[in-house]
Amino acid sequence: MKSILLLNTQQSDFSLQFDKILKRAKLDIQGVEKIVKEMLDSIRLQGNKAILEHILAFDNWNPKNFEDLKIPENSMQQAYDNLDDKLRCSLQEAYNRIFDFHQKQKPKTWLDFEENGSILGQKITPLDRVGLYIPGGKAAYPSSLLMNAIPALVAGVKEIVVCTPAPCNEINSLLLAAMYLCGIKEAYKVGGASAIGMMAYGIDNAIKKVDMISGPGNIYVATAKKCVFGEVNIDMIAGPSEIGIVADSNARADYIAWDLLSQAEHDEMASSILVTTSQKLASEVSQRINEFLLKLPRAEITAKSIYNRGAIILTQSLEESIQLSNAIAPEHLELLVSNPLEVLPQIKNAGAIFIGENTPEPIGDYIAGPNHTLPTGGSAKFFSPLSTEHFMKKSSIIAFSKKAMDELGEKCGILACAEGLDAHKHSVLIRLNKKD
Amino acid sequence: MKSILLLNTQQSDFSLQFDKILKRAKLDIQGVEKIVKEMLDSIRLQGNKAILEHILAFDNWNPKNFEDLKIPENSMQQAYDNLDDKLRCSLQEAYNRIFDFHQKQKPKTWLDFEENGSILGQKITPLDRVGLYIPGGKAAYPSSLLMNAIPALVAGVKEIVVCTPAPCNEINSLLLAAMYLCGIKEAYKVGGASAIGMMAYGIDNAIKKVDMISGPGNIYVATAKKCVFGEVNIDMIAGPSEIGIVADSNARADYIAWDLLSQAEHDEMASSILVTTSQKLASEVSQRINEFLLKLPRAEITAKSIYNRGAIILTQSLEESIQLSNAIAPEHLELLVSNPLEVLPQIKNAGAIFIGENTPEPIGDYIAGPNHTLPTGGSAKFFSPLSTEHFMKKSSIIAFSKKAMDELGEKCGILACAEGLDAHKHSVLIRLNKKD
Repeated sequence: MKSILLLNTQQSDFSLQFDKILKRAKLDIQGVEKIVKEMLDSIRLQGNKAILEHILAFDNWNPKNFEDLKIPENSMQQAYDNLDDKLRCSLQEAYNRIFDFHQKQKPKTWLDFEENGSILGQKITPLDRVGLYIPGGKAAYPSSLLMNAIPALVAGVKEIVVCTPAPCNEINSLLLAAMYLCGIKEAYKVGGASAIGMMAYGIDNAIKKVDMISGPGNIYVATAKKCVFGEVNIDMIAGPSEIGIVADSNARADYIAWDLLSQAEHDEMASSILVTTSQKLASEVSQRINEFLLKLPRAEITAKSIYNRGAIILTQSLEESIQLSNAIAPEHLELLVSNPLEVLPQIKNAGAIFIGENTPEPIGDYIAGPNHTLPTGGSAKFFSPLSTEHFMKKSSIIAFSKKAMDELGEKCGILACAEGLDAHKHSVLIRLNKKD
Repeated sequence: MKSILLLNTQQSDFSLQFDKILKRAKLDIQGVEKIVKEMLDSIRLQGNKAILEHILAFDNWNPKNFEDLKIPENSMQQAYDNLDDKLRCSLQEAYNRIFDFHQKQKPKTWLDFEENGSILGQKITPLDRVGLYIPGGKAAYPSSLLMNAIPALVAGVKEIVVCTPAPCNEINSLLLAAMYLCGIKEAYKVGGASAIGMMAYGIDNAIKKVDMISGPGNIYVATAKKCVFGEVNIDMIAGPSEIGIVADSNARADYIAWDLLSQAEHDEMASSILVTTSQKLASEVSQRINEFLLKLPRAEITAKSIYNRGAIILTQSLEESIQLSNAIAPEHLELLVSNPLEVLPQIKNAGAIFIGENTPEPIGDYIAGPNHTLPTGGSAKFFSPLSTEHFMKKSSIIAFSKKAMDELGEKCGILACAEGLDAHKHSVLIRLNKKD
């Protein structure tokens, strides 16, 4: 019978095995780059026509014109009105909590006055127009819509465009309801690389280009986002979902087993890793995984993920556990240790940190408030969770007084001169009434 | 005789002409992508050997081994000690002012306590290791070193690597002095796409990979940065320098002429645009440009830039001027108008805003304090100036209390269920002691 991989930092080939975990889920962008670039080029050159062709080819329906791609606003309201009461109430609670958290992230313009009378500062401005990509198909991801639309709303973005694939011209009603809740006015049944190209370049006389694209997607979407980066901004390049759990002997095996499985059920490529000092916990979790798996409707995907890509790593100390966790830099990290606040400052790399046994990772997927769009594949070493700030930009402000210019102009001229930039020097010296 | 292009928003082909300004300086990444990818692949596959070959091919010297590429720390100190007093003092003043400004940008970890006893927050952590690319060759850019190293220092980054090309194995002594001032310990004589590849992938047994790369460079550097984005984070993809000036009839033509020329002298591809309501100012500035050009040692480059890519646009109103400026989204924007504070809130897109006649753009290049690494080519619509935050990352923090779980767990389970994710539901319900 299969079971989750068990590693021990003391085994001779540990670093070899651990290296596989570090290199988990490298996105094979090179493998799909050619086809994605062709699709993007076709959108740039043929616009609308290319989009309609892609939909016929990939989504199995035949839109006649661009109007056919629009998702009618009244279908969003209808879907919302038809929601079961409990579900509507849960969605509203999620909306409220996500909204509240993202408001706390909202940066403000600031100005600083110097004694010499000059002003330095930073102006914060919402982006004009952004595009949200929401995966579609059989599964429904209303939570992704909330997590991408709400920070844009909080930021004050005026124009929000949503793209989602509609295989066979069908869209999940829960996603439509979430669009209504977020006040989405402009949405299109376009998916994959086509959607990214359409939003990044715009379509003549039909759709304006956006300034920034956020949202999760498959390898084609991730690759297209990388290709259009620079033409527009993007949130990040994200791969399959992951969880890391650092636990000591006090943690409950049944909780951990469900938490690992909840990542594994997302995707065969998902990665679920427990790092613990407790041999007893390790074997209990392994057993519970096997038991619980049988209860799951998505058992096939979940089993592939947990058996092929999951692992339990036995360490010699909490310190070693933390060291491994920082090296893994997991998207989600659960801290199930006796004194989590002592550990927290040592956690350097993680998209979101879930502390204590009452904070299972799914609480962060839906309702806690912080964003669930998080860096994967180790990129938590340098990327941050999607936030209100992704939907705003900064401009520096400099207003020198005459006094400041008199004090600093000459030094500025000396530096310009040292870099061999004469017009720079003149531009300063003419304000000082100096010829040279 | 040549003169700067004069446009009028009333002329029949204005939108056609303006479109050229909007499409200024599109980087031809596709044109060099193939060669850059080959160079990056060779570094990934052959490491050190590839780097040494690239240097022989592009920088005209023949390093024997990796050690040869290291810039000795004592050469930095020596260069600093040999600085002329006035220059050292100017560099130090620039350092202090840049440091002060970037400290004001430093974000802080925050936690928020809810009434139900749970904690939500955002942890801020400096990146572990970053790479700074500083262009080299004949010109020296000590200011680029300050502008890239100081935000990393303020952020608390422990390991800072600098790469700069050293044609014929020579490095400008002013750049070395600036490295000493910033306390750089690890620097290499490696330039172009090779430097980006070396920092992004690391070299076995010689150099560790970094988490983030910042710094300006030519089209090869920009393309390489785009290619490695995702493997590491990057600051932005920047092209040639630009200035936009919005001026009314009170502005001084001589000031404006020098400010336009100071951008033009950077690069043949630089773009310098004046937008004004004053016909008189427009023609005076045009005349002054022609006069001042004769005084410049870099007159050839400057003339190519200002005559081929500069423009003066005559508008009907200040409002129209601002509208055009927002569409251009210039890297640098000077506001030379009677009531700049009334105009400031309307400025949506600009990397840095220079207010009033005592604030020529070069003051921001060297000594004002805000960063001079700014979004170009219209990307100020969505990118921000390089900042302390680029050298830090965020992790969300969620610590639910038992009470919070009791209040919100069921709703979370309902949402998980609606998305068809059963293990997610179980992971929550087991905390509520509910079977389903």
